[in-house]
Amino acid sequence: MEGPSNAFPMNGGEGPHSYSRNSSAQRIFIDRARKIIKEAVAEHLNIEAFSSSGAFLIADLGCSVRPNTFYAVSNVLQAVEQKCESLGLDSQILEFQVFFNDHVGNDFNILFRSLPQDRRYHVAGVPGSFYGRLFPKNCLHFVYSSFALHWLSGAPKEVQDKSSPAWNKGRIFYTNANKEVIKAYAAQFAKDMEVFLCARAQEVVRGGLMVLTFLTRPDGAPHSQVFANRSLDLLESCLADMVKKGTISEERMDEFNLPMYYASPQEMKEAVERNGRFSIKKMVELVEGLAEAYPLTGKMIASQWRAALEGLLKEKMQFGEEMLDELFDSFARKHDESSIFEFVRESSITFVLLERSTTN
Amino acid sequence: MEGPSNAFPMNGGEGPHSYSRNSSAQRIFIDRARKIIKEAVAEHLNIEAFSSSGAFLIADLGCSVRPNTFYAVSNVLQAVEQKCESLGLDSQILEFQVFFNDHVGNDFNILFRSLPQDRRYHVAGVPGSFYGRLFPKNCLHFVYSSFALHWLSGAPKEVQDKSSPAWNKGRIFYTNANKEVIKAYAAQFAKDMEVFLCARAQEVVRGGLMVLTFLTRPDGAPHSQVFANRSLDLLESCLADMVKKGTISEERMDEFNLPMYYASPQEMKEAVERNGRFSIKKMVELVEGLAEAYPLTGKMIASQWRAALEGLLKEKMQFGEEMLDELFDSFARKHDESSIFEFVRESSITFVLLERSTTN
Repeated sequence: MEGPSNAFPMNGGEGPHSYSRNSSAQRIFIDRARKIIKEAVAEHLNIEAFSSSGAFLIADLGCSVRPNTFYAVSNVLQAVEQKCESLGLDSQILEFQVFFNDHVGNDFNILFRSLPQDRRYHVAGVPGSFYGRLFPKNCLHFVYSSFALHWLSGAPKEVQDKSSPAWNKGRIFYTNANKEVIKAYAAQFAKDMEVFLCARAQEVVRGGLMVLTFLTRPDGAPHSQVFANRSLDLLESCLADMVKKGTISEERMDEFNLPMYYASPQEMKEAVERNGRFSIKKMVELVEGLAEAYPLTGKMIASQWRAALEGLLKEKMQFGEEMLDELFDSFARKHDESSIFEFVRESSITFVLLERSTTN
Repeated sequence: MEGPSNAFPMNGGEGPHSYSRNSSAQRIFIDRARKIIKEAVAEHLNIEAFSSSGAFLIADLGCSVRPNTFYAVSNVLQAVEQKCESLGLDSQILEFQVFFNDHVGNDFNILFRSLPQDRRYHVAGVPGSFYGRLFPKNCLHFVYSSFALHWLSGAPKEVQDKSSPAWNKGRIFYTNANKEVIKAYAAQFAKDMEVFLCARAQEVVRGGLMVLTFLTRPDGAPHSQVFANRSLDLLESCLADMVKKGTISEERMDEFNLPMYYASPQEMKEAVERNGRFSIKKMVELVEGLAEAYPLTGKMIASQWRAALEGLLKEKMQFGEEMLDELFDSFARKHDESSIFEFVRESSITFVLLERSTTN
């Protein structure tokens, strides 16, 4: 029943390279999401229709590990409780069940051992890719996903196919690749979003809500101007250096492509409309003010990316600790030596509020 | 929302002392349970009442780690599917969601990574003690628990209280202890069962079923004749040897008591009737034939107990690997030197089928 099994979990544990120690920038974004969740629930959640069952089921898709995970969930709970109170409903009668989902390789042990002691919700962990069914039909009332949907189900097949015009020779990403590569990545995003929305359309009750937070590329902005893309471009150049030095083979680099895509709000809008099972109730793009949220040294950037990519590099490139150290040390240096912090600010965060249509 | 937090998980991982490598005897019991589950579902499950919701929710409480866990669940699924077919219902329409529950310290990572690829159910892991609420109200259709309910929520407080007549000085279990200690353990079992049944009564739908498998003491048999009790008596004597040698202090042994109790079928019956929310639909006790199921060497016995008790001994007695080796080596020897394999066969396995009452 599981979807595509390209499982590249965030770094588990609590070591210096763990994801849980490298996500303070995300925390700032989640604080901004808080207000948006509150408004979404207040204005769009038909809690009276759902409260009759006695249980309110929430799923956090791509939850990774603490601490942001629990903070985001508590925002949703608070918003629902406030909505209940504003309607004169007794929110204490309502029982919450929260499903924390991530790839089967996620560190669920750490997640479970860090659960807040004073939580007032039942907990379940759900292993598996969200590009596939994870829950029974018509059971979820609220779905939340934060900074997860820029991970594709896998890199597009064409970019690893020597006979394809989209073969991404000598590169690991689409930032500065040829048009065919960019097209393949954009198509993969569209396809994955369709799979994601079809699965959720079955699982979310009619009128249920989804709040999806994406790291995006402002409409019309070239890929090469997006901060994350520029950053990964430097990673690509570090790997190319390792090929030159003979540390890794040319073939290995050719076979490796990052399974990520930073869509524009317009691409997301089109994916939702094409799918047709959800209506867009709100879409907010934050472009301004990312500078203070982003870490400002190469070391900080490298540390964040290492937490996110270490598992992938170990699995797909057979990198050991020493090679990872070499790669991310030079990656940090390249950031500090580049002009990336001064000129590139073309990233945005987009919040989408979707409501499961009652008609189809 | 969690219950008592006395978390003594089975040994995780796949090493020589792991639980997953030491549970073949349990597998034999589960094979016997298979027939009982099938009959229970065929005769007592009102699948027509449940199938309208489209999802059939199963909980495996105290699931530990594979492989028995998945085998037991597949038995339940098969039985439900056969029941559907016998009624002319399309079992393919029904979606199954299986909740694997165990203490928060259980190795859920291993559990999730060993999930059968061809399963036709949605999976969730639920961390927490089953002596407390774990799920929303009225959501579970079938609860299964195998060899878990002889674990108490904790050792009775009185047996660690110097001022109590039930103080269990110099002992770690009740096998050969004074009457007050035995009474305290029996009372703890009754109390824990009440908490367990109250929690499940809220979570299981009216008419829902529970199949609980216990390692038991035949009605009327003295505790000192039960195989597991006799075995733990030898463990007690090994620890007493360590006190004599000065390896552990007298105080530490006095403070340590095993949180387990082997109830008689009669005690279980009384607990269910006192609670009043479930009716006993079937109760089967297997006494005969345990000999071939039980491992027949001291080393095998020691290995099984080590898998079950290692976490507890590490936490409560601060035992390291070396001390554990010493303890379980002498434990194995004592079994081989004793007459335990020839004379003691007074253990039994009891299967109880409970139905959630529709009236209260």
